Formats: sequence, structure tokens, C-alpha cells
Amino acid sequence: MGSVWVNGKPADTIDVRDRAFTYGDGLFATMAVDGAGAIQFLSCHLQRLTDGAARLGFSWQPSETLLTLLTDTAGRFPRHCLKLQLSRGVGGRGYAPPTAPQITEVLSVSPIPVHYTSWQQQGIKLQTSTVQLAKQPLLAGIKHLNRLEQVLIKSYALDEDCDDWLVCDTDGWLVESSMANLFLLFQDENDQWQALTPAMNNCGVSGVMRQQVIMTLLAMGVHVQVVPVTYDWLARVSHLFISNSLLGTVDVIAADSYHFAVWPGSAQLRENLAIQL
Amino acid sequence: MGSVWVNGKPADTIDVRDRAFTYGDGLFATMAVDGAGAIQFLSCHLQRLTDGAARLGFSWQPSETLLTLLTDTAGRFPRHCLKLQLSRGVGGRGYAPPTAPQITEVLSVSPIPVHYTSWQQQGIKLQTSTVQLAKQPLLAGIKHLNRLEQVLIKSYALDEDCDDWLVCDTDGWLVESSMANLFLLFQDENDQWQALTPAMNNCGVSGVMRQQVIMTLLAMGVHVQVVPVTYDWLARVSHLFISNSLLGTVDVIAADSYHFAVWPGSAQLRENLAIQL
Repeated sequence: MGSVWVNGKPADTIDVRDRAFTYGDGLFATMAVDGAGAIQFLSCHLQRLTDGAARLGFSWQPSETLLTLLTDTAGRFPRHCLKLQLSRGVGGRGYAPPTAPQITEVLSVSPIPVHYTSWQQQGIKLQTSTVQLAKQPLLAGIKHLNRLEQVLIKSYALDEDCDDWLVCDTDGWLVESSMANLFLLFQDENDQWQALTPAMNNCGVSGVMRQQVIMTLLAMGVHVQVVPVTYDWLARVSHLFISNSLLGTVDVIAADSYHFAVWPGSAQLRENLAIQL
Repeated sequence: MGSVWVNGKPADTIDVRDRAFTYGDGLFATMAVDGAGAIQFLSCHLQRLTDGAARLGFSWQPSETLLTLLTDTAGRFPRHCLKLQLSRGVGGRGYAPPTAPQITEVLSVSPIPVHYTSWQQQGIKLQTSTVQLAKQPLLAGIKHLNRLEQVLIKSYALDEDCDDWLVCDTDGWLVESSMANLFLLFQDENDQWQALTPAMNNCGVSGVMRQQVIMTLLAMGVHVQVVPVTYDWLARVSHLFISNSLLGTVDVIAADSYHFAVWPGSAQLRENLAIQL
């Protein structure tokens, strides 16, 4: 039973001249398959890949063949993770992209990490990474393949009681966790719930789940601001959670010296999004 | 006659789980083979790969087998380019690097671009790119595989009479050309030659040829400063040249609206470095 497909065929190798291998010239999406074998937010993931490709300067749309492979594979692997990676394909020496690239599509299946369920149930603790993200507006928000910053972040050992890294940009502003987006929450003087999530205009990955969470929070009556968020906001909010496509949303109960209560709306949010693990 | 080797064996594919393919997790060197079939500055290239790997968090030394492959290949391909790419090897899902990575080594051969000879003879014109380099001290100077910024730079069309891009960082300071380092020269009030080359502490690639040029300029009695260089220095210097391992040094005769004379010391510099094309 194969679990990797390259351009629609079971395979475990790619061309050594592939530009993802030589320059990280591509992007990817990580998608959750639900218990019924359907890919959650599939159209959003595909649209984000199309948009990301356009920002990198190439055109990509999912073919019927790929859509069939995605849905068939999801049906065979309920409660798994599907990763779809796109690369600008084979190129020659030199950075200049080919004018008519033949896009490489790689689909792979892996289990959803088992600890995500306990994370959802118990919440997690974050620790700020000493590795800060460079500010590059031209690549900000894209889930591209230039991931050395994340590799460096994950190459350090977390303190024993911590679960993930909190990551800032080189100005010290909050961006994300090592692999998820951030939402900060508090009640204003009128008992109105307010949520902040860092704007992704300088760095960070704008997650598909982040967008779903924003829309669902709005539908729940929460005010949401997508804005630059300074680190000291951690001292001014009562709740913090992270989101991504695999873990859904997970409450953060501590970040460095700050402590947070589980957000009372988290269970409802997950139910509305159908992302309970 | 093969021209690509993966881990010492002729091959044209790599594992789809290779971390260079998934995250750009690796680095590379581009080396010139001289007319006698010897690799120019080989030990410097290998040392820089070792140093770069250490900064990315893995250990690498060239094996005897690799050294033999390098020298044998160079002997068969005089006046060619050898590219040696290292990756942190096969990994699982997730950014965290394997604790005991099996490094992938890819060696490939290609011709040295023919236009480099006329560039050396006639000089070139540069045009400033609208794509600016993000400031990431943790990756600065390393010839790593996260090259989307360079891909974006090269995806634009140069003005018809221009040959390469001049690239600044996001503060607008001079860094490099799209694929070579910069040297700015002028004579001070005592007729002493002064050279400036941008410091690589925030971004850019610190080239092996750059280091050779610095040492050779010093030996020629030129004062060399490795410093941050603002864009307006272009208005204050009389000469400008670029350097990399394949093109040696090439005089820049114009950059945007600035014009420069060929540096009178260029021929001597190339002779001292044995990099005349």
C-alpha cells in the first residue's frame, strides 16, 4: 500500500534537478482527513496553493486527476494527514525560474500526531524561541519550502515542561508558534470578547485553519483584529490559543512567565469548525 | 558519461523525503575547474561547507571517497563548473532535524557560462532589483538552499542593456549582485586605494572568491574594509566589481545612473588569483 505519489504515480524519488531540492522553490499544504475519510477545508487548501504559486510567479490549478487522487486517498486514510507539496519542477543551473515550468506534485500520507488529542484536552505551554523570523513581505504568509528558520527553531531543546515554541520576528513582535497560528483573547469593558491574531505581512504562515477560525469567531460574535501584536500583549490578555489544520485549536495555558485560563469558547469553536480530535 | 552523482554513485534522483526537497535544509558550493583539470580553491569551498553545516546544526566533513570523486571528475571536465550540494538527508514529517542525519551529497557538472568571458573583457551593467533581502543574521553569509529571494530577483526581466541585478537589503543597503559579491573602490587623498565590500552579517552569501579577493587585494597594498555599505556609496567611488567562483572578477561599468571606469588593478588581481577566463 503506497503512501507517496509523485505526479499521480506511486514513487519514492524525485529528479535531482527539481527546484524544490536545489532552491526550496515551491510550497506545500498539510491537510487533515476526518473520520469519514473527507479532507477538511480541501478547497481552501487548494486555493491557498494556487495563490501561493501566483505569488512565487507560477501558475497552478489542481487537475481532475489530482482531485481524484486526493479524495480516493483520503477515503482510504481516515484520521490521517495528507501533505501536498508543489515544486517549480526540474530546472537548470541558476536561480532564474523556467518560463514554462512543469510543476512537480507530491502527495504523502502520515498519521496525525497522537499527542494532539491530549494537547486539545489539556492545553499546552509555550516558550519563546531565541530564533526570530526575518521580515520579508514578499514571502510573508506563504507556506513555501524555504523553512530553515523553522528548522533552526526546532533544533533547540524545549524546557522540560514546554510543548512548543513561541516565535517572534526580528523586531520582537509575536508571529506564531513553531507550526501554528496565534489567537489572543480578552473581554473588553463591555464584556465583549476581543480576539487578536498577528498580521502576516512581514513573516509567518497564514494558515488555512487561521482563516477558518477568524470567520468562525466572527460568527460567534467575537470581534477579531488582524494586526501587528507586540509581545507585551501577553500580559494584557486572559486567553491564548493556537491553530493549524492538524491540531485544530489548542489552548495555551502558559507562555514564558504568563499564565492563561482555557478560553471558555474553545469547545464551541471546535464544534462549529468540526475539528474536535 | 554521467554528470550527476548522489552519494558517490551516478544517479538522477533523490529520496522524496530528503530535507533539501521538503525544507531547503542544506547548502551548496559552486566550484570552477581550471584548464588543467584542478578545482580552484577546493579546500576553501570544503571548509565553507563544513562551517555552513555547523551553523545549520549538523556535522560534515568531506570523505576520502568524495575527495577522490571530486578530483577525478575535475580531471575529466577541465573548464567546467562543479556543484556540490549537501542536504540534511531523509527526514520525517515536521521541521525538527534528525539527531543523526545521513547527509546527502550531490555532485553535478555543467559548463561555465560562455558569456562570463566577455563579461570579464567588457565589464557589465547592473540594475537595482525591487526585491530586497530580508535581514536574518542566523542564516547570513551561508550558501544555503533557501533561495526563494534569489528566484524572485531572477524572475524579473532586466532592462535590455543590463546584465545582472544589484541587490539591497530591506533597509536599502548594498549587499551583492544576484549571484556575486561586490567590491567598491576609490583612491583616497593620499592616492591610496581603498576597497569596501558589504559585511554579510544580516544577509547575502559570503563567497569563497570574495575571501580570496580580499586577501589578494590586501597583498596588493589595497586597504579593504568589510563594512555595512549604504547605497549612496555608489556616488562616491570610482570603480566597482563583482566576484564569484565561476566568473572570477568582473568590472561593473554602470549601476543604475552611476558610471564607473574599469579598475586599473583588475588585470593584476586576476593574474594573482589565476582566474583569467
